[in-house]
Amino acid sequence: MSRVTIKKLLQEKPVGSEQTVSAWIRSIRNSKNFSFMVLNDGSCQGTLQVVFDLDMPGYEEVSKLLIGSCVTAHGKIVESQGQGQSVEMQASKIEILGKTTEDYPLQKKATSLEFLREQAHLRPRTNLFGAIFRIRHHMAMATHKFFGDRGFYYLNSPILTAVDAEGAGEMFNVTTMDLGNIIKTKSGEVDFSNDYFGKQASLCVTGQLEAECFAMGMGAVYTFGPTFRAENSNTPRHLSEFWMIEPEVAFMDLEGNAELAADYTKYLISYVFEHASEELETLSGYHKFQAKQNKEQFEDHVAILEKVKDSKFERITYTDAIDILSKSGQKFEFKPDWGVELQTEHERFLSEEHFNGPVIVTDYPKDCKAFYMKLNQDGKTVRAMDVLVPGVGEIIGGSQREENYDKLIQRIDEMGMEKDPLWWYLELRKFGTAPHSGFGLGFERAIRYVTGMKNIRDVIPFARTPKNCDF
Amino acid sequence: MSRVTIKKLLQEKPVGSEQTVSAWIRSIRNSKNFSFMVLNDGSCQGTLQVVFDLDMPGYEEVSKLLIGSCVTAHGKIVESQGQGQSVEMQASKIEILGKTTEDYPLQKKATSLEFLREQAHLRPRTNLFGAIFRIRHHMAMATHKFFGDRGFYYLNSPILTAVDAEGAGEMFNVTTMDLGNIIKTKSGEVDFSNDYFGKQASLCVTGQLEAECFAMGMGAVYTFGPTFRAENSNTPRHLSEFWMIEPEVAFMDLEGNAELAADYTKYLISYVFEHASEELETLSGYHKFQAKQNKEQFEDHVAILEKVKDSKFERITYTDAIDILSKSGQKFEFKPDWGVELQTEHERFLSEEHFNGPVIVTDYPKDCKAFYMKLNQDGKTVRAMDVLVPGVGEIIGGSQREENYDKLIQRIDEMGMEKDPLWWYLELRKFGTAPHSGFGLGFERAIRYVTGMKNIRDVIPFARTPKNCDF
Repeated sequence: MSRVTIKKLLQEKPVGSEQTVSAWIRSIRNSKNFSFMVLNDGSCQGTLQVVFDLDMPGYEEVSKLLIGSCVTAHGKIVESQGQGQSVEMQASKIEILGKTTEDYPLQKKATSLEFLREQAHLRPRTNLFGAIFRIRHHMAMATHKFFGDRGFYYLNSPILTAVDAEGAGEMFNVTTMDLGNIIKTKSGEVDFSNDYFGKQASLCVTGQLEAECFAMGMGAVYTFGPTFRAENSNTPRHLSEFWMIEPEVAFMDLEGNAELAADYTKYLISYVFEHASEELETLSGYHKFQAKQNKEQFEDHVAILEKVKDSKFERITYTDAIDILSKSGQKFEFKPDWGVELQTEHERFLSEEHFNGPVIVTDYPKDCKAFYMKLNQDGKTVRAMDVLVPGVGEIIGGSQREENYDKLIQRIDEMGMEKDPLWWYLELRKFGTAPHSGFGLGFERAIRYVTGMKNIRDVIPFARTPKNCDF
Repeated sequence: MSRVTIKKLLQEKPVGSEQTVSAWIRSIRNSKNFSFMVLNDGSCQGTLQVVFDLDMPGYEEVSKLLIGSCVTAHGKIVESQGQGQSVEMQASKIEILGKTTEDYPLQKKATSLEFLREQAHLRPRTNLFGAIFRIRHHMAMATHKFFGDRGFYYLNSPILTAVDAEGAGEMFNVTTMDLGNIIKTKSGEVDFSNDYFGKQASLCVTGQLEAECFAMGMGAVYTFGPTFRAENSNTPRHLSEFWMIEPEVAFMDLEGNAELAADYTKYLISYVFEHASEELETLSGYHKFQAKQNKEQFEDHVAILEKVKDSKFERITYTDAIDILSKSGQKFEFKPDWGVELQTEHERFLSEEHFNGPVIVTDYPKDCKAFYMKLNQDGKTVRAMDVLVPGVGEIIGGSQREENYDKLIQRIDEMGMEKDPLWWYLELRKFGTAPHSGFGLGFERAIRYVTGMKNIRDVIPFARTPKNCDF
C-alpha cells in the first residue's frame, strides 16, 4: 500500500479507510493495554496520533521506541476521541525504519535556540523550526508568484564577480591559488594573472547592476539569490550569507517603485496568512510562552502583521522625517541630524509611534547613499527610498537609478571610485538609456519579521556568521 | 497616460484606443511621407510596429534615431496592413528617452554568439537572447510549480561550506585573509584560525547533504541555487558557476526517484511549450538559419522535445546497458567496459539509436559513483540512476542514499575520506534513519537542451569560466 502524507490525511479525513504513514515519533506514551504515538512527517505542521494495542505484532519493541525514531504505520483511520485532533489511526502494524538512541539531542524538555543552532541538521524536525521553514518556503513561492504574475522575468545574477558594486569593500575573496604559496609579481603584488579567473574575484554583495542590464532589455526582472558580506558583525540582524530579492524595472520612477514595494510587502504577508496559518499560530504560541517564561510583555507580532497587510503605506521625505524626529520630544540615543542616515531607533519611532503603520521615506542626502542613485534637482538629495515597518524598521531599500551618463560619471568621480570595471554598466546610459528603478529585500530579514523570531540565524537553514561555517 | 506593455497590446489588441508604449528600437526605416519603427520592450518576444508621418512634431529628429535608441510612443492602435502583425500604432507623439551612437554594438548585421558573449550586458536586447532568457524564466517557474504543487518545500542550502561533499576536490577557496600576506602557523601551514570562518571555507559543489538533513524532517524538499566547480574545463558544456535543482525525499526509493525525474523532465518541457511557444519558434528559426548558413543538416530540436515530453522513460540497469553497447556493433571512441562510467557517446547511442527516446540507467558500479549511494545486495553496484535524453545524453543524475550507518561508514573508510567534517550527516543515520532518495539537474544543461543552443555560456546571464569573470 502506498504511503499517504499526514497533510493529506488531515485534509481529507478518510475515516474508515486503511492507510499507511511514514513519519518520526514526536512523543510516545504507554497505558495498560495500549499505547499512543504522535507522528509528524514534515508535510505539514499537524501531527497524527496513532493508537496501537497489546495485540499488535511486535508491540513490545514498538512501545519502547524513543522520540525521534522513524516508523511506517499501517491501520484504519477513525474519528479522534481526543481534543484538537480530527482523525487518528488505529494501527494494525508498525514497522521500525530507524531507531534512535538515548543521546538524541531533541528530547521533550525545552531546548534553547542557541543549542538548536548547533543541531542545525536536526532542528527541521522540531515543531518550531518546521513552522519557520515552511513559512520561509511560502514566502519564496509568494515572491515568484508576485513577480511572475506581473510579467517580471526571473534573473540569476552572477555570484562570482570582479566588481565591488556597493563600493563598501566588505567582500569575500575567491581564489584557486594555493594559499600556502601565493605567487607574486616582481613588484611584490599578488599575481592574479595565474588565478582561476586571471584577476581578483569576489562574492557578490548585490545583483543590482546586472539586473539593470537585463531590465534595459527585458523590461522588468527580479533576482532571488544569495549575496555575501564579509563584515565582522556578530549580531541577531546580520548574516555573512543571505538571500536577496531585487526587482529592477525599466520606465519606472520612484513613485512606481514605492508602490511596487508596498504591494510586494503586503502580498508576502497576505500569502503567509493564506498558506501557513497553522505555522503562524505555532509561532504565536511559542512567543507567548517565551514571554511568560521570561516575564516579558507579550508583543503579538501576528496582530502587527495583520495590520500591516491592510495598511496604506505613508510617504514622507527624509527631510520631513528629520523634522518630525527633531520635534518629537523623544529621547534618542543618536540625535536626528540632516545628512546622517536614519538609525533603527528613528525608523521604529516613525513607523511605530508617529505613523503607527508602515511608512516609505524618500529623497535621502546623496552622501548617505550609493553612487548609482538618481540625483534630485536640488543637487543634494537622491531618489532613494526606504520602507519602514512597525516592529523592525527598514525592510526594503531602493531607488530610481541615475540614467544620465554625465551625471553618473560625475558621481563616480566625486566618490573616488574606479570607472574601468564599470564600463558595461556605464554603457547602459550610453546606448538607449531610460529611467529605471528597483529595490532590494533581504529575505531573512523579511522572514524574521513574519515569524517574529529575534535572531536571524533561526530563519535560515544553515547560518554563516563570523567563525561559523558548520554543516 | 500610463504605459502599456507590448505583450498586453498584442494580447488584447485594443483597436481604436490611444496607448502609450516605452521600448527600444529594433529597426527603423523612412519612406517619402512617413516612417516605421519596430519596437520591443522585453515584455514578450513580439514587436510593435509604429508608423509616424511627416506632420508629427519632431519628425526630423525621431526619423534619424538609430537602432537601440529608447522612446516613448503615444498613438492610436489600428489593425495592421502588413504581414504577420495583428495591430500597429499610428503615433501622434514620440518622446526620445535615450539615443544611441554609431558605435552601438548590436547593429542589424548578424553578430556572432562569441561577440555577443563579450556584450553580455546588451545581449538581452536581442531577439535571440530575449527568447533564451524568457525560456530560462519559464523553466524556473515550472520548477517551483512542479515541486510546490507536490508538497515539496524549497530549501536554500548553504553556498559557503567547509565540506567537500563530492570528494572531488575541485572547489574555490573563500577567504578574507590578505592574499599578499597570508599568516602561517609555526609549522608553516596556512593559519586558518584567523580567517573569517576560523577554518578553510569553500564554495559548495552541491546542496545535497544539507537537503538530506531537511528531507529527514520536512519530508520532501528541493534546492534551486548556484553551485561551483573550479575545474579547468573550457568546453561548451562547462561553467564554473551554474544553478542546480536538487530534490530530496524521505521514504522514497530508487523507483520513486526515477518516476519523479521523468515527470519533472516532461513537465519542464511541457511548460515551455505552453508558456513560451513564440520563443521556441524564434529558436527553431535561428537554428534553421544557422544550419543553412553553415551548410549543415538541420536537426529540429523542437521536434525532439515534443517527442520526449510525451515519452515513456525506458528503464535498464547499467549492466544491461553495457551489454547492449557491447553487442551493438557500433564503433565507439571508448569501448564500453563494465566498471567504467558511460561516456556521452554511449549515452547518446542508448537514447538516440537503441531506445529512440529517453532512458533511465540504474545500478552503476559503486566505484563510478559517490560515497553516499546505497549499496545493492550484490555488494558491487549502487542504487544510482542517470536520466539520458536524445540530443544530449545525461540530463539528471541521482540515487537512493545509503541510510544504514555502518554501511555508510564502511564506504567512507574504503574511499579514504575524512569522517569528522561529516559528523552531522552521519547522525542522520543514527537518529531515526529512513530510506530516502534524490537527484540533481544542472539548470543550464537543461536550458541548453530546451533551447537547442550549443554553448552553455549562451543560456546563463553572465557566464563564469576559466579566465572569465567579466560584468
